[in-house]
Amino acid sequence: MAWNTNLRGRLPITCLILQVTMVVLFGVFVRYDIQADAHWWLEKKRKNISSDVENEFYYRYPSFQDVHAMVFVGFGFLMTFLQRYGFSAVGFNFLLAAFGIQWALLMQGWFHYFEEGHIVLSVENIIQADFCVASSCVAFGAVLGKVSPMQLLIMTFFQVTLFTVNEFILLNLIEAKDAGGSMTIHTFGAYFGLTVTWILYRKNLDQSKQRQSSVYHSDLFAMIGTLFLWIYWPSFNSASSFHGDAQHRAALNTYLSLAASVLTTVTVSSIVHKKGKLDMVHIQNATLAGGVGVGTAAEMMLTPYGALIVGFFCGIFSTLGFAYLTPFLESRLRIQDTCGIHNLHGIPGIIGGIVGAVTAAYSSPDVYGEPGIVHSFGFGSYKMDWNKRMQGRSQIFGLLLSLAMALVGGIIVGFILKLPFWGQAADENCFEDSIYWEVHEEVNTVYIPEDLAHKHSTSLVPAMPLVLPTTSASIVPPVPPTPPVSLATSAPSAALVH
Amino acid sequence: MAWNTNLRGRLPITCLILQVTMVVLFGVFVRYDIQADAHWWLEKKRKNISSDVENEFYYRYPSFQDVHAMVFVGFGFLMTFLQRYGFSAVGFNFLLAAFGIQWALLMQGWFHYFEEGHIVLSVENIIQADFCVASSCVAFGAVLGKVSPMQLLIMTFFQVTLFTVNEFILLNLIEAKDAGGSMTIHTFGAYFGLTVTWILYRKNLDQSKQRQSSVYHSDLFAMIGTLFLWIYWPSFNSASSFHGDAQHRAALNTYLSLAASVLTTVTVSSIVHKKGKLDMVHIQNATLAGGVGVGTAAEMMLTPYGALIVGFFCGIFSTLGFAYLTPFLESRLRIQDTCGIHNLHGIPGIIGGIVGAVTAAYSSPDVYGEPGIVHSFGFGSYKMDWNKRMQGRSQIFGLLLSLAMALVGGIIVGFILKLPFWGQAADENCFEDSIYWEVHEEVNTVYIPEDLAHKHSTSLVPAMPLVLPTTSASIVPPVPPTPPVSLATSAPSAALVH
Amino acid sequence: MAWNTNLRGRLPITCLILQVTMVVLFGVFVRYDIQADAHWWLEKKRKNISSDVENEFYYRYPSFQDVHAMVFVGFGFLMTFLQRYGFSAVGFNFLLAAFGIQWALLMQGWFHYFEEGHIVLSVENIIQADFCVASSCVAFGAVLGKVSPMQLLIMTFFQVTLFTVNEFILLNLIEAKDAGGSMTIHTFGAYFGLTVTWILYRKNLDQSKQRQSSVYHSDLFAMIGTLFLWIYWPSFNSASSFHGDAQHRAALNTYLSLAASVLTTVTVSSIVHKKGKLDMVHIQNATLAGGVGVGTAAEMMLTPYGALIVGFFCGIFSTLGFAYLTPFLESRLRIQDTCGIHNLHGIPGIIGGIVGAVTAAYSSPDVYGEPGIVHSFGFGSYKMDWNKRMQGRSQIFGLLLSLAMALVGGIIVGFILKLPFWGQAADENCFEDSIYWEVHEEVNTVYIPEDLAHKHSTSLVPAMPLVLPTTSASIVPPVPPTPPVSLATSAPSAALVH
Repeated sequence: MAWNTNLRGRLPITCLILQVTMVVLFGVFVRYDIQADAHWWLEKKRKNISSDVENEFYYRYPSFQDVHAMVFVGFGFLMTFLQRYGFSAVGFNFLLAAFGIQWALLMQGWFHYFEEGHIVLSVENIIQADFCVASSCVAFGAVLGKVSPMQLLIMTFFQVTLFTVNEFILLNLIEAKDAGGSMTIHTFGAYFGLTVTWILYRKNLDQSKQRQSSVYHSDLFAMIGTLFLWIYWPSFNSASSFHGDAQHRAALNTYLSLAASVLTTVTVSSIVHKKGKLDMVHIQNATLAGGVGVGTAAEMMLTPYGALIVGFFCGIFSTLGFAYLTPFLESRLRIQDTCGIHNLHGIPGIIGGIVGAVTAAYSSPDVYGEPGIVHSFGFGSYKMDWNKRMQGRSQIFGLLLSLAMALVGGIIVGFILKLPFWGQAADENCFEDSIYWEVHEEVNTVYIPEDLAHKHSTSLVPAMPLVLPTTSASIVPPVPPTPPVSLATSAPSAALVH
Repeated sequence: MAWNTNLRGRLPITCLILQVTMVVLFGVFVRYDIQADAHWWLEKKRKNISSDVENEFYYRYPSFQDVHAMVFVGFGFLMTFLQRYGFSAVGFNFLLAAFGIQWALLMQGWFHYFEEGHIVLSVENIIQADFCVASSCVAFGAVLGKVSPMQLLIMTFFQVTLFTVNEFILLNLIEAKDAGGSMTIHTFGAYFGLTVTWILYRKNLDQSKQRQSSVYHSDLFAMIGTLFLWIYWPSFNSASSFHGDAQHRAALNTYLSLAASVLTTVTVSSIVHKKGKLDMVHIQNATLAGGVGVGTAAEMMLTPYGALIVGFFCGIFSTLGFAYLTPFLESRLRIQDTCGIHNLHGIPGIIGGIVGAVTAAYSSPDVYGEPGIVHSFGFGSYKMDWNKRMQGRSQIFGLLLSLAMALVGGIIVGFILKLPFWGQAADENCFEDSIYWEVHEEVNTVYIPEDLAHKHSTSLVPAMPLVLPTTSASIVPPVPPTPPVSLATSAPSAALVH
Repeated sequence: MAWNTNLRGRLPITCLILQVTMVVLFGVFVRYDIQADAHWWLEKKRKNISSDVENEFYYRYPSFQDVHAMVFVGFGFLMTFLQRYGFSAVGFNFLLAAFGIQWALLMQGWFHYFEEGHIVLSVENIIQADFCVASSCVAFGAVLGKVSPMQLLIMTFFQVTLFTVNEFILLNLIEAKDAGGSMTIHTFGAYFGLTVTWILYRKNLDQSKQRQSSVYHSDLFAMIGTLFLWIYWPSFNSASSFHGDAQHRAALNTYLSLAASVLTTVTVSSIVHKKGKLDMVHIQNATLAGGVGVGTAAEMMLTPYGALIVGFFCGIFSTLGFAYLTPFLESRLRIQDTCGIHNLHGIPGIIGGIVGAVTAAYSSPDVYGEPGIVHSFGFGSYKMDWNKRMQGRSQIFGLLLSLAMALVGGIIVGFILKLPFWGQAADENCFEDSIYWEVHEEVNTVYIPEDLAHKHSTSLVPAMPLVLPTTSASIVPPVPPTPPVSLATSAPSAALVH
């Protein structure tokens, strides 16, 4: 079946409608929070705030910048591992995230930051919006290469909506804790994306199988994504925690957990290869599982060795997932998970939810100190008759809720995306940039440095620079009738017939 | 016309003279600011400063680091999109910026930070120096591929000088506001660079046209630049704003504006392509226009939807510029703008100046609060008889001044750079790294893993690893008279068959 | 001699034992520091701390993140310059650093952060751990391409151990200062690595010489490493300095020193080339020498021009080292230094140690102010009978100690690594990723866009996409007897014979 992949008209109108809607809704609803408003000078006097440094900006902005780098550089480049899908990986991620953060500011604003008829905007909101969109980037990983940018925008629209509802129920109604988003971001994002890709199953996807692997340089580009995710993950898990010890502790726990998962990823990657070699897919992905797994519990008193243990097992399960589960899911359950998000976000996300529940269930005034536990969980203060066992149960409910929302939402959105007019590519054209991108024909000059040109001047080489047309998406030219001498040229994937 | 591009002697002497001059001038003029001096311990006592965190370092250093990343990584990699000019893009940007920041510290120091015979140095100065050099990086984009490193150093020397004079008049005499530098950095930098490239017009530049396009991987390298510019732009526009709400607000406005310009860039990029495909040039550049356009007004009470609207139109005009204006400028006005800086910095810079003027002209105590407006603009305090309309006029004067300085300065510097002894390349050698860089001949081994070598041991494959000489800038060797078996080799763009 | 490079079993067991040991030791020893513990709420009350911002986290975390980026992204990508060793460069650096930081937290914890039977963990420890591991990354540069991941883990284990002992003697017993680690990190790391590679000398390394050079794209990947090291080095040298002026000053000095070394690197690089061209190896490395050279003295009152002078000479000596010393060391002293760490970390490290000693020896109450000198060096306070000359001598002892520890430690570790069962590659297989990594066979489709395919439909081109098997590590297939039409395909380094 060949769909029409020409997006002219359709994509521009979609983008334009979405962006105009954003402008209008922002005009109606969004105002600066007092901390970002020029009236802050009154507020400072009124509240007797002695120093500018007490502006929330200084507590959160450095962490925000790291999170921002993760969403746009980290996720973007992580997905460039495919040999012919780098433009789309980084470009569509850019597009969906740029839309998603705006919509998330509105959705989360209505639920969490609504004051006197307006959404109040501060550095907290943009951290939360980036978090929300991170779950869309996760889901993008499952459908990478198989959907059009229009489908991605629509998916993001629905996913951000569902994310916010799920998050609101989880944090505000169930009163679960989820600072690093093991449940709300990773579990929800992963199972939502997996459900969508399950609905969008493509029977003949092996027709584009040759483009589903990486090439040498694309694996290095992907490592840029991996490393920026890895180094900034401590900021991700700590960005929205309470000031002081909680933010501090969340960063330390994540640092440790991530370190442990690197070693266990290498361990398993070498074990599962018949000659003990390492696989870049594992190193690019499973090394990050420790960050996912420690998300919920990072700000809790997990203990440093607790963090190591979480990273230890996340690295193992994630790598095993890449080795054995992804092929199984594809062949048996018809879940085509391009980036293996089930292994990086799904399993470790669930682990993270459970670890959070257990850690919360073992929290006590001994561990936290009396004011510490009030501050961390609110036990005994605004939650008068609440206790640690109830907190543990809340956490588990939060995890189950995230899974349920992901499955139900994913099915609905999957069927919407299955409609035939979104410009999706045919099976044989998946994982190919040139469907949606102008890929310039590569015209390479055979550049001849002066001295060398001179050296060869008696040979058959023309004195003029030779311009040899080659394309990445190489076109095989008609064969000349009787070629006495032929020149084969090559680009990353060129070919020549003689 | 063939100039001598051998820089031996000339480039080293230029660099050495510049650097020795810097050392001497720093020795005479530059000292630590009290906040970076060991005497700060006295100052703290004297001023009764209670906490180390009140040291300016902690307010500004995180933003500085982001700006630093933009100048060196962002601009550097953004310009690596050319297929054979990556070394020069990132390397010359590195060189000119490393020189420029030193000279900017002196120039700006004399004008802004001169106390009792010395320039006092703190984190503020290095942010301002990076800002100043950003305008040189912008101008570099116009002449990319057509100038020698010596020309770049000379251009930077003059541009930094003019930048500082322009900035001083604009900020201190006209009393305009320009925190994010829409006028001083982008408008000035862009029109300066465009004027220089206009003077340096090369009639036969199409002789190196085949190297003016990108290849697949070079576009991905350029996206590294794009994304680091994009994510850190909120820090750029807020780095030098007042503590507290102004810095906070500037970051938020920039965040929003940038998001909007991504969607409108995609919109227009798809519209202008006959099959609705996206163009990497647009995505790499026009998505950033929102950051430029919101530069002046970012710290003002622009409102969140105001920021979105600015980004909305900047994305549109910038992309249209790439599609229609750049070819027009080249063919009709003889302005060869390699990176299209007119679209990314020129037009959005002017928009930014106008938006700043309008926003300032509508500022009122209602919007800012009484102390807010005193603090933000100084109305009624040190500017006793100043009002918002006068501020709006100031802003417009500032914009016009920046344009005038750029044009006059650009013409003078252009003629200086036109002199024939700066080592510039001939038209047919433009956009080629190997003019100024040692580009190693690529010698690739056909690596034969043990088991596979074994498998083929009965074939004609030699047991030894084959060392096949290939070059990116491939040289076609003389054809042997009667080759019985030939080997076709290939590098990223080489191959030969017989 | 052919060693068995199959790591199956050996590498996993090593990683697993190391990681399990880490978990157990962390369980026994490591707890949160009070600033990262939920009991901080009690502490705040007890110590009457008025603001959360006084938590050490806010003083140090932004700098930590920059250091973290340097260790994992900076060093990792800097070493990707080799054409066929990018996976190993960035992947093994990842592995050794992830292990090293855990072991460093324990070692440094026992020596510096041991309180009442436990190591207390805060943001300071993770900065110090990253510092310690940076010295392992330096040493990795010397042996890059010639050692197995197992050897790297063992080397890291010993190096971290020795580093900590050396650092303890240097900082706590000799009472030298070394905030940016010119001595403890760079001098120690470089000479340790050089000694190891000297012991591991490979006589026939020229058998893999063809893979020891860079290719065009690998040089651009390496520049990612260079630039992230360069921009964040001010954070590196200031991350562990005292709050306030010292941290501020260290960042400024490093900023200046680095800028100067860029210009002198370009100077010398152009001088030493017969046609005045620049060499990417110099630009990638020697531009960073200013950061190394200013490490010890950065937080001292070095003066801004002093910082420029240090960078000036470090750039010169480092580039000269690459041009003349590295070949000499290899041919005469049998020291095969893959990345030229002697030039980037060795020489500038020694310069840094000497500059630190001289600067300390000239420190006086005139320069620092009375409280400043007490605070910076402790003269007259806890070091009652200590003076600046003694401080200078301490610094020199520290430098000599670092050299001695590196040499003795390097010899011992070198001999341990010489044992034949670590899975090291044979001489002809050095600098080759596919020894330890699964490098996928590149299968490229000749993608034929619809319209173009149509255009050629009358030619000999098959209607189906052609799947042409090509490998990076290309295998030359048997020659078919009588080929009427042949296809020459190419991948980054593929070839096909007809």
